[in-house]
Amino acid sequence: MFQSFEVKARPEQGPPRLAALREVMAAEGLAGLLVPKADVHQGEYVAPRDDRLAWLTGFTGSAGFAAILADKAGVFVDGRYRVQARQQLADVFTPVDWPEVQLADWLKGELSDGELGIDPWLHTVQQVRALEEALAGSGLTLRRMENLVDRVWDDQPAPPLAPVRTHPDALAGHSSAEKRAALAEGLREKGAKVAVITLPDSLCWLLNIRGSDIPRIPVAHGFALLFDDGSVDLFMAGEKLAGVDLGADVRHRAPGEFAGALTGLEGPVLVDPVSVPLAVLDALEAEVIEGRDPCVLPKACKTPEELAGMRAAHERDAVAMCEFLAWLDETAPGDLTEIDVVKALEGFRRDTGALMDISFETISGSGPNGAIVHYRVSEESNRKLAEGELLLVDSGGQYLDGTTDITRTMAVGDAPEEAREAFTRVLQGMIAMSRARWPKGLAGRDLDALARMPLWMAGQDYGHGTGHGVGAYLCVHEGPARLARTGMEELLAGMILSNEPGFYKEGAFGIRIENLMAVREAAPLPQGTVREMLEWETLTFVPIDRRLILAERLTAAERDWLNAYHATCRHMLRPSLGNRAAIWLDVATAEI
Amino acid sequence: MFQSFEVKARPEQGPPRLAALREVMAAEGLAGLLVPKADVHQGEYVAPRDDRLAWLTGFTGSAGFAAILADKAGVFVDGRYRVQARQQLADVFTPVDWPEVQLADWLKGELSDGELGIDPWLHTVQQVRALEEALAGSGLTLRRMENLVDRVWDDQPAPPLAPVRTHPDALAGHSSAEKRAALAEGLREKGAKVAVITLPDSLCWLLNIRGSDIPRIPVAHGFALLFDDGSVDLFMAGEKLAGVDLGADVRHRAPGEFAGALTGLEGPVLVDPVSVPLAVLDALEAEVIEGRDPCVLPKACKTPEELAGMRAAHERDAVAMCEFLAWLDETAPGDLTEIDVVKALEGFRRDTGALMDISFETISGSGPNGAIVHYRVSEESNRKLAEGELLLVDSGGQYLDGTTDITRTMAVGDAPEEAREAFTRVLQGMIAMSRARWPKGLAGRDLDALARMPLWMAGQDYGHGTGHGVGAYLCVHEGPARLARTGMEELLAGMILSNEPGFYKEGAFGIRIENLMAVREAAPLPQGTVREMLEWETLTFVPIDRRLILAERLTAAERDWLNAYHATCRHMLRPSLGNRAAIWLDVATAEI
Repeated sequence: MFQSFEVKARPEQGPPRLAALREVMAAEGLAGLLVPKADVHQGEYVAPRDDRLAWLTGFTGSAGFAAILADKAGVFVDGRYRVQARQQLADVFTPVDWPEVQLADWLKGELSDGELGIDPWLHTVQQVRALEEALAGSGLTLRRMENLVDRVWDDQPAPPLAPVRTHPDALAGHSSAEKRAALAEGLREKGAKVAVITLPDSLCWLLNIRGSDIPRIPVAHGFALLFDDGSVDLFMAGEKLAGVDLGADVRHRAPGEFAGALTGLEGPVLVDPVSVPLAVLDALEAEVIEGRDPCVLPKACKTPEELAGMRAAHERDAVAMCEFLAWLDETAPGDLTEIDVVKALEGFRRDTGALMDISFETISGSGPNGAIVHYRVSEESNRKLAEGELLLVDSGGQYLDGTTDITRTMAVGDAPEEAREAFTRVLQGMIAMSRARWPKGLAGRDLDALARMPLWMAGQDYGHGTGHGVGAYLCVHEGPARLARTGMEELLAGMILSNEPGFYKEGAFGIRIENLMAVREAAPLPQGTVREMLEWETLTFVPIDRRLILAERLTAAERDWLNAYHATCRHMLRPSLGNRAAIWLDVATAEI
Repeated sequence: MFQSFEVKARPEQGPPRLAALREVMAAEGLAGLLVPKADVHQGEYVAPRDDRLAWLTGFTGSAGFAAILADKAGVFVDGRYRVQARQQLADVFTPVDWPEVQLADWLKGELSDGELGIDPWLHTVQQVRALEEALAGSGLTLRRMENLVDRVWDDQPAPPLAPVRTHPDALAGHSSAEKRAALAEGLREKGAKVAVITLPDSLCWLLNIRGSDIPRIPVAHGFALLFDDGSVDLFMAGEKLAGVDLGADVRHRAPGEFAGALTGLEGPVLVDPVSVPLAVLDALEAEVIEGRDPCVLPKACKTPEELAGMRAAHERDAVAMCEFLAWLDETAPGDLTEIDVVKALEGFRRDTGALMDISFETISGSGPNGAIVHYRVSEESNRKLAEGELLLVDSGGQYLDGTTDITRTMAVGDAPEEAREAFTRVLQGMIAMSRARWPKGLAGRDLDALARMPLWMAGQDYGHGTGHGVGAYLCVHEGPARLARTGMEELLAGMILSNEPGFYKEGAFGIRIENLMAVREAAPLPQGTVREMLEWETLTFVPIDRRLILAERLTAAERDWLNAYHATCRHMLRPSLGNRAAIWLDVATAEI
């Protein structure tokens, strides 16, 4: 099993560690110390050695940070994690509602002056600038220093050293040399001699490699300097690269040489303030050009080969999903728990013989647990399925040819009318987005309302974005485009985004329907006058629970879309299914 | 008649005036001179004495500017005015496609160095900053100077001196003293001692006055300094204020004293760089706080009394529109021309006995002329109505209690299927926007796609925004909110916007359907979970041509909206109509 249900951090671990940390803070003369969740690569998951926030505080959520003062220790968590933080934190910690309370305001309220320690490798240039701006005029300043948590963490694990594998050019669509040559041309156009790459998915995309340094995301940790001749200095532990041939233009260097190499670098140097650690900027002596990591946009716009891989991965994953849903319908509720559901689903994905990892911890929320948007079932929270409740399952797989992310919400027995009404609205929004066609040049923000309007008309909404970017056998949350009010990035052909409207009734049920879709050029229409338009190609083909749909509420166009979608599911998947799932599929995809 | 169809500017007037201007430019040692359309108040319409661009070049469009060099005279016009500019400009002028070609780039291409003359009263702070930034590093600089066009314009008309009238508190909802007290409090919160007001609609809103200094917009030209005690220095020609009592807190001063008053002002002074002329900033010696004109937002959020006035004005205007549409159906095509249509419509509006002015030049476009988005019929362009064509009429009235703006597109005889298909899509977009309900906090950009999606699905679109703000017996185009991709301003209760999707097939037909709507708080719904939502209250109630609607293409919700809309038209307007129009209304509002 990839997923574990163990409760790892315990409230009692926090106080002695906090006390030890405060001792070294006092010795350093610090008024405070910031402890972020992020590692030096700013990824969504961190290796155990980098999980300083969890080690210190016991809080294991995927986002947050602590501000440790001499007599107060604030742990800043967002709306998803408020309940969890209260359960996991000992009373020496003070949970702070973030971003409602901003760090700088909180600090200014607690302290009149003094120095705040930060590890400049764990904060981006942009984060530090914003914090320094917000603290300007107060008596508080930041002091860059070595990591004090590491100093008191005696049994801190070693950095991960998982072997690196070559990602085939046939799946990537371009060789690393081709990518590097194209990016080098971009650097020359910008007048930059070299770009600093610190995001691990950028690094892996650029070099056509994958790794296993952290769970769920097949990346290898390392740094790279991409020069304007297309060559690269790669800073990565040599053990990880055994047997991997990256060619003569990729010069291998030890990770410890990175800081020194920055200092000696000839500029101008391209640095992305959004993702590059402050320590990198501090180390550079050459002229700096600030701009986006040059890998981000080409990585987001998938090649035809990557799109073909994503289609294949989605078809494979859909077979596992159908086997799972057929099993669920036969078995539920019985004595099934949320954990049983997660285990069964991971088993069906393993049965494909191609699963490299799950792409994130499966969300399996029954009844009221479905209303907790980022619910992760543990042995403590585990709940039995029950008649008349909904089950929300959000999951995905990592395959060599692609990454999947799918949410389906199922009725267990007869669903209440209120849930069916909400499900139908969520579906209408999801269909409106899927069917959309739009002139080139729009961003996710311009389309977000399409998925929400059916809910808005009933006074309802969901408190998360409509969709996020997804990588090709890389991060399941990938920038830069989003379908959301904050999605200001232009949607470009080849980008893959999720489409996942939902509705959550606290204490009762949660609904979310999620497909992945790729942006593609739309074919001209007979009466069309707009020269260049884009549309979605749906990648996910798994039936949507018909028992939750109030068919009479759908427009003809919505009904047509759904019936065509289900027909595609049937034709695509039936030949690959076992007998039970094939029979289930026929019923699940019948016309409405 | 308010509207005239005379072609005023003639190409032959330009060359001698240009030659005279170049002589004074040479004497001043200028490499170039900028001649904007705008006056010192940056309004949409200018008084004859301020129409320097038309006087110099012959181009009479509502937007554009000229850059006069020693051997070239560029006239920059946007897409709406390309054809008109080519017709109106003598060949000594060079039409330039703006904004595709930016002024700074054009100047840098034509000149290597030298000084460009600008009148700092005619350019806003923001405009000059952007231009100076774009010219940085070139050899070109700006020289602020007196207006050289005025120096060579011998028979330049005098400034307008139309009498000012008091706008009743009962219509405004707040007395001027109340408004000034509220704004003064805002100034004190910002730490500003005084705000400079140069926008004439801000001035008129603030003082509850109206004027007639320019056509179509009932404003008086003037400047004001609003102090943090709620008192005002009003700089306006005394003749205009005869018999108007503004109270002791509004100190009347001569227009010529304005510049000197700025110099002596004690700060901090609030200045809006978007609308305030550069000359104001130059004249100030005190500390400046840059921020929005404090009248803009409260002016946009109408009071209950203003909304009541707008409803009454719209009902009155709708009666005139129905009389007009009934007359048109009985008469067209006959020998009717576009000008006959404009005259008839203005006549019906006059028959209300309440028309103060039309709110802009009526657009009356038959057949292919309907596809010219900003078409203004003249004696030269005038065209006869014809069977099988569409007629697009975009018009509005200024009444003491409100401003209207409505577009209806009518079939003359049997419309081609293609036009009915497009009309139905435009209607569907217009209905989608009208029905929308959304959580507080969104901007026009977040909703714009709703009105376009039915067209986008057919590969079609329209090249203008979906809607603009509208004033209450003020400007028919009022900021700051817009329904458009550029609409970043939050929609707030009380704002009035137009909803006017369209479709234009060049050389064939134009379609636009436009209602005005007010933003209002939406009542809670039984299953609603979003605390604060907004929705539209439709203000315009005039039948939409049923002959152009393919009823079978509408969803049930769209049909319900249309039938309910037409039922409201019937109940609201029938009692006020003459016999012919009443019979017409029954047919025009029959259920579909």
